[in-house]
Amino acid sequence: MIAPPELVSFLRENDNFFIATHISPEPDALGSSLALAMALESLGKKVTVYDRDIVPEFYRFLPKHERFIHSTSRMQTSSCNLILLDCNSPDRAGIEGMGFRSSTVIDHHETEKDFGDIRWIVPNAAATGVLIFYLIRQLGTVITKDIALNLYAAIAIDTGTFRYSNTTAEVLRVAAELIDAGATPSYVSNSLYDTWTEKRFALLIASLNTLEIQNGVAFTHVTQAMYRKTETAPEDTENFANLPRTMKHVRVSAFFRQIGKAYWKASLRSRDTLNVAEIAVSFGGGGHKNAAGYTFKGTLDAAKKSLLKSLRKSF
Amino acid sequence: MIAPPELVSFLRENDNFFIATHISPEPDALGSSLALAMALESLGKKVTVYDRDIVPEFYRFLPKHERFIHSTSRMQTSSCNLILLDCNSPDRAGIEGMGFRSSTVIDHHETEKDFGDIRWIVPNAAATGVLIFYLIRQLGTVITKDIALNLYAAIAIDTGTFRYSNTTAEVLRVAAELIDAGATPSYVSNSLYDTWTEKRFALLIASLNTLEIQNGVAFTHVTQAMYRKTETAPEDTENFANLPRTMKHVRVSAFFRQIGKAYWKASLRSRDTLNVAEIAVSFGGGGHKNAAGYTFKGTLDAAKKSLLKSLRKSF
Repeated sequence: MIAPPELVSFLRENDNFFIATHISPEPDALGSSLALAMALESLGKKVTVYDRDIVPEFYRFLPKHERFIHSTSRMQTSSCNLILLDCNSPDRAGIEGMGFRSSTVIDHHETEKDFGDIRWIVPNAAATGVLIFYLIRQLGTVITKDIALNLYAAIAIDTGTFRYSNTTAEVLRVAAELIDAGATPSYVSNSLYDTWTEKRFALLIASLNTLEIQNGVAFTHVTQAMYRKTETAPEDTENFANLPRTMKHVRVSAFFRQIGKAYWKASLRSRDTLNVAEIAVSFGGGGHKNAAGYTFKGTLDAAKKSLLKSLRKSF
Repeated sequence: MIAPPELVSFLRENDNFFIATHISPEPDALGSSLALAMALESLGKKVTVYDRDIVPEFYRFLPKHERFIHSTSRMQTSSCNLILLDCNSPDRAGIEGMGFRSSTVIDHHETEKDFGDIRWIVPNAAATGVLIFYLIRQLGTVITKDIALNLYAAIAIDTGTFRYSNTTAEVLRVAAELIDAGATPSYVSNSLYDTWTEKRFALLIASLNTLEIQNGVAFTHVTQAMYRKTETAPEDTENFANLPRTMKHVRVSAFFRQIGKAYWKASLRSRDTLNVAEIAVSFGGGGHKNAAGYTFKGTLDAAKKSLLKSLRKSF
């Protein structure tokens, strides 16, 4: 994989970068941003890393995560060169009102918006972290241990630690180079998977108790009352959609979390060739082929019915 | 990694091989055996693959698994050259009474027994499948798609699909070559992890609803009434002890399944340095450092209390 030459030149020749990534950040967003920031700084550049949301507690094992800022109230962003990572439109990063000197987009999502002066969007890349790996190599800077660990975590999360269909020989070779550079696979997977709080685990059980299977779709949900009962928050539901997909006759796992009285955030997980990104787009959302999401205004029952109706064409 | 030259020569110069692997076989045992058998056959050799136990249903996605024989009653093994895989003593394979022309051992377990004319035992290899990969390359035969898939599954299971501490850069590079040769990572992981029945999933939820955490020990259990309610059986509880260990403050996950009125089978999972094999041995059971088990006669309450008492010394 090769980054566009104009992207590499632009990064080399400019300064004062503002790296922003999507709201509700996960390790591909966070790790890719931190890795690119460190690489650019090793070239003497000034870099700010921004996420509207705070870094969830369970991703605070990522080296230098504490440098993310969450407000730009004291910044003159108009003199900064925006690099939008792991998403491709300003609204996904919550920066739609801000002005920048220029804008670059590096992403691997399928739902593409026409934003950015320089755009490097590779939908079949397993993770934005893979793109950043090649970009850093082309920039010619050293992949330090901290960079390696951030990129390894980015790739690990987006491939389900090398379980999903986006796991290619190339992905494993990139991961091998990151291990050579200092990343520790078991540290990353322990940090990603074995650091649940007891409260989060109680919320998972509560969500599993709502399981309902209809026409190959496994529905689970979390209400605001459940958050209160278990003393948890929306970020605790990360990946709750994954577990029901382990059932062999389930083609889609649909997890709904309540964000308002009659307002829900849907997370879809599919297997094999079933494209849930298309479904999500039809509801105004987006994502990847096997992992996508959207918001829905209406009752939970209406949300389920509309999804079943929409999936009927895909099954 | 390089296989001993005398092993490579021996396989090239001889014929009539009898590949045997350990009882209760898993994909490293099965896949390594099938891969080596196919490679030797491509050199024109006669090969038999043997396991005392049948191939469990959920591992029947391994190409050519159906060629395993489980009885030698009509064979003259004394004219065969034994290759013992993924174990290093005849009793682990249930072949201790049989005579062979010669014996070769290829394994990655800590060697305890001094058995075998030719021995290639590499305890720090992630899987026997890694050894077989290098051996086949040295034999100079083609790694076919069927061989690749068997070896990929072997390596995937023994590294927890690249999550455990035995995951090295070399392991990922071997896996990458197996993908180049035709192995499909998502097919292997779907086959290994995403083939739960709905009934088994319902039993998991029932077991999670019994969760009780005391002094860093997460207790869950399944009663015979739960099997009846969910129409499941004891083998459906395989790995039920794993999930509660994902909680960061849980040092031991203890899962009890009822095997009689006041009779329980305990499965323990620990993390890091805590050795649950020692605990299990003290109750008359056994196992590995981080995964062990035993049976307990008494009430569930008594089982929990006795375990907490026993763990007090280890914590």
